[in-house]
Parts: sequence; C-alpha cells; structure tokens
Amino acid sequence: MSRSVRGEFEIITQIKERCQASPVVQLGIGDDCAILQLPPGELLLSTTDMLIESVHFRRDWTGLLSLGRKSAAVNLSDLAAMGATPRALFLALAIPADLIAEDIDLFFEGFLEVCHDSGAVLAGGDTSSSQAGLSICVTALGSAPATEVVRRSGAKPGDGLYVTGALGDSSLALQWLGEGRALPPELLNRHLEPTARVKAGRALARSGIATAMIDVSDGLLADLGHILKASLVGACIQVDRLPLSSALRATGDEDSRLFDRALTGGEDYELLFTATPESEGKIARIASENSLPITRIGTISMAAEEFVLEYNGNMYPLPLHRGYKHFSDGT
Amino acid sequence: MSRSVRGEFEIITQIKERCQASPVVQLGIGDDCAILQLPPGELLLSTTDMLIESVHFRRDWTGLLSLGRKSAAVNLSDLAAMGATPRALFLALAIPADLIAEDIDLFFEGFLEVCHDSGAVLAGGDTSSSQAGLSICVTALGSAPATEVVRRSGAKPGDGLYVTGALGDSSLALQWLGEGRALPPELLNRHLEPTARVKAGRALARSGIATAMIDVSDGLLADLGHILKASLVGACIQVDRLPLSSALRATGDEDSRLFDRALTGGEDYELLFTATPESEGKIARIASENSLPITRIGTISMAAEEFVLEYNGNMYPLPLHRGYKHFSDGT
Repeated sequence: MSRSVRGEFEIITQIKERCQASPVVQLGIGDDCAILQLPPGELLLSTTDMLIESVHFRRDWTGLLSLGRKSAAVNLSDLAAMGATPRALFLALAIPADLIAEDIDLFFEGFLEVCHDSGAVLAGGDTSSSQAGLSICVTALGSAPATEVVRRSGAKPGDGLYVTGALGDSSLALQWLGEGRALPPELLNRHLEPTARVKAGRALARSGIATAMIDVSDGLLADLGHILKASLVGACIQVDRLPLSSALRATGDEDSRLFDRALTGGEDYELLFTATPESEGKIARIASENSLPITRIGTISMAAEEFVLEYNGNMYPLPLHRGYKHFSDGT
Repeated sequence: MSRSVRGEFEIITQIKERCQASPVVQLGIGDDCAILQLPPGELLLSTTDMLIESVHFRRDWTGLLSLGRKSAAVNLSDLAAMGATPRALFLALAIPADLIAEDIDLFFEGFLEVCHDSGAVLAGGDTSSSQAGLSICVTALGSAPATEVVRRSGAKPGDGLYVTGALGDSSLALQWLGEGRALPPELLNRHLEPTARVKAGRALARSGIATAMIDVSDGLLADLGHILKASLVGACIQVDRLPLSSALRATGDEDSRLFDRALTGGEDYELLFTATPESEGKIARIASENSLPITRIGTISMAAEEFVLEYNGNMYPLPLHRGYKHFSDGT
C-alpha cells in the first residue's frame, strides 16, 4: 500500500476523532455524503475557494498551521459577507509526497481551530496524492433567515460606505515577503492568518443594518466595484479616511503609497458594506461589541458604477492597477 | 492582465449565461455565496470529490468533454448512493497555462450536460491558474426527506445484496489504456464517462427498499467492506452471479480473472445496496423502469465484517489486492 493510500485512511480516522459534534450536522465524515439539518426556515449559503501552491501560497513563506487557519478563514469570510452563520466545512486536499505527516497534522490543527471558533464543523471532504504541489479546496456551508441575508445588490444612493478593520496590511506583507525583507509579526499574520469577520458580518446582517456587503479579498476598489455593479450605483470614497494599521503607517511610506495600497491591496478579508445614514449609532455599537473598528469611508452615489476619490476635499487619482494579483498571477 | 486573470472573469461570465434556473437555487454564480432554499423538511446532503491530473486522469487519455462529464458524475454518484435528489454543484478549477479556451469550453459543456441531466444546476465555484496540472474539485449538494436517506449502516442479516449495471469495465479500460491497447468504445466510455445512477438511487431510497447503499468507486469488496463495517454484518457473495458486461466477456479472459476484476476493479460507479427478501419484486420493477439491470449477488450474514465468496457452490479465494488504485497510487 502506498504512502498516499495508507495516508488517506489514517488521515480520515484521525480527523474524524478531532471533529466536533453539531446539532446541525446529523452525519459527518464516514458515509457517501454528510447529512445536515438546517434550522427550519433558514436559507442555505454555500461558497467554494481554492488555495493552490505557487499561486495562492508558497510553503517557504507560510507554516502549515497558518495555512490551515487561512484555508478555513478565507471561506468563512464569504459566509460572513452575506451574514450567514457557519455550519459545516468540507475540505479537499491533494497532498504532494514531500509533505510529512507532522505538516498535515499542523494544517488540520489550524483548520479545525478556526472552523470550530466560527461554530462550524468539518463534515467531509476528500484527500488525494498530488504530483505537484499542495492543492486545497474548501466548501463552506452556512445558513441564515431569508430576511437576514445580505447581497451585493442592495446599496442605495445616500448610503454610507463602511469597512471593518484596516486595509493594505496583507498586500504589504506579501510584497515584503517577495523582497525577502523582515516583517513585523502583526503585518505578517495579517497575510498568513487573516481573520474572517464572522460575528460582525452576522451582527450587521441580523440587525438589518447592512444594505449590501462583500469581503475585501481582491482589493477595496475591485470589491466595491462588484457592489456598484450589482446595485447600479456609484461611490465617493474619502481616501484620507481609509483605515490604516499602525504597523502599516510605521513603514514610513508616503501617504499616497499607503492609500493606494489600501485602495487596491487584496486579501485583507475585511467586510465592506453600505448602510443608511440612520444606522450610524448601531454600527458604532456593533464595532464596540466586536472590538473591531468600523470606519465610514465614503458615500454611495447615483452615478452607476462610477468611482470618485477625494482626499481632504480634493480629487484623488484612481490608482492605475485596481485589481489585486497573487505573485504568480493566479486569481 | 495575465491570461489566467482575464480568463477567470471571461469564464465566469460565459458560464453564468449557460447555467440553468432552478426553484431551489435562489442565487447562483455572482455573489459571495450561492443561496439555496431546500424543499421544507428535507435534509441537506453534501459531498466533495477531487479529480487531480496525473492521479485521477491523464489528459492524453481523456478528452475534456469526457472529463467534464466524469467530474460531475462521480460527485452525483455519491448523492445517488444516499438516495438524494441533486440540487446544486460547485466547481473549483485550477487551470494550467497549456489548457486552451476551447478545452475549458468543452469541459464545461460536458460538466453542465451531466449536471443539468441530473436536475442540478451549477451554482458557484472558483477558478485559479495552476503551475502544474489541471485540478478539479466538485462539491455536490442534494436533498431528501429524512425517512428516505439511505446510509451504509442499515444492512441486516438475511438481506439480499444487489448491484446495478455491470462491474469491472472501468478497471479493464484503465489497464488497457496503460498498456496502449485499442479499446472498444463501450469499455472506454465506462471509464472516461461513467454514469451516476441518480434515478435508480432515488427510487431505491424513496420506496424504502434499500436498507444500506454505497456507490462502487473503490471496488466491490472495498466498498462492501464499508457497508459491513458500518452495519456490523458480514456478506456471502455468489461470485458466479457478478454482472459482467458483454464487452468485458468479449475480451476472452478466463472466468477467474474476470470475476477478480469485478470484485476489485474501481470506478464503476454502480450502486451496491442491501434489501429485505420481500423487496425482490419491487427491485425488478425499479430495474425495468430505469432500463438498468439490478442483480442479486449475495446475502448479508451475521458474521461481522466477514466476506465469504462462493462460486457455483464452492469456496472462491479472496483476491490478494482488494482495493483499487489509480495509476499513480492516488486515492
């Protein structure tokens, strides 16, 4: 029996023992399908994201514990962006021969930690050998009452535009990793172990505050573009209000480079949402309850799909490259 | 903008236009998550399967149309094995640079054809570039009333053991492909484009006939082993009753080699199930209604996890290698 074949059954047995129980998951790993019973009347939300070696990550830049955490988080972030409660994750791994058992264990440790912290359980998946590189594919299932699901299409002119946390850290970390520069751990972790804003997303949805929402994975302008397109509206962004972390500011870069990075950097996994002006107070309360800064960065306008950027009352030029690219041009 | 980045948006737009509507899928491709509303009271069934280049397939052996069909079918087969109605598929593709747009189109044509034939719709996924080989990861979601879900654990001593279709074709085709031998198309297609027994699985579940069920992906003995373990029973197989296709018989191999292949060959994606002796007539009707042979091949016994093989009343030796291996030992 080959390493990979033996590996599959060993991995599944070990993982099964580490999976938590859940009232929603009637049957997890161990049959042809997992069986879930969602709370009556709730809609099912489903999202799938891959992390491919040499496209989305490099094993010489990330530990397997971090990679496990990130693999769960980037999928949970999509559930958060629609306001869903995470219920179950499914994990498919194609494992190259040079990945040792301890690395796989670390990956699962990180993955299960973030999965369980979100309230979801690992309910199934697949493993295979890989001839070239580690491939990770995760499907995340969540649920929410129909009235509490937030789409991209609900933004209205006059709505405020908000973002959680800080922007640009992850893309700076990625650039410095590429340049071989030493990184402050708080910046490095923002790239290697991003946090999905699950509780904040759920709170913004449950309260009816968010009129449209998306997570910032491709960069603020790119992801805002999706909201503008789906909602047939435009946006004016106060660039000087974009939230920057103290770690990002401490790099000493000039303001325009920092703000360009905040406008275009990807993989921050913060929530970008719109809300009516009356929601200001409630948003402050959700920020406080979640110990998570939420910053108003602009206003939705009528001009369909049009961006206007302002900086201290003046026009601010649109960055040339609006999209975010992984180091090997993967998407 | 790189080929792969441009590719992603083009692919998504084109695919979106080709996706069908479904009353279950409220929102398909185009937001952070897909939104599904399952029929009230039905359970959700979910399964994930990968197809990795050089592990599960070789591009010099399969066309992309066939590969698209197979990628959908192997996942639908897991839903069929629990009696679920397919609802939505999610498709993640890591695409190498040497795969041209026409190939990707063919893949989607095959995938969508099998997806739609099953009654499901493509509701989301992910695309990425790949540094090495095509990786395909599919998650299939289905649903069924709680009383109609068939697990592996319900087999009882005295139950008959049944299998749909014929066994061994796919593994012979794989062997001959490896040896560079010319193949009759009906054998080749059994490997390259297996059929998920979705309607038969649903009928066996809905009628309450199947007491335990699994699909034969790893080989009859290996998959029967899962039923025996989950149900804490044994099985006696009448090897001479194993259903062989006329194409397999026409190879002129001696009987013992044909039956060994039927016992251990993988990827037939037939349904293996157990049923009480009273169900004989109903099973014949389901076979007739689905134009699909269903053969009784043995009986469930009390001897936990014990296989007994008989051939025309005599003992038949257990094949040495019970599991099925892909050509590169992937699982």
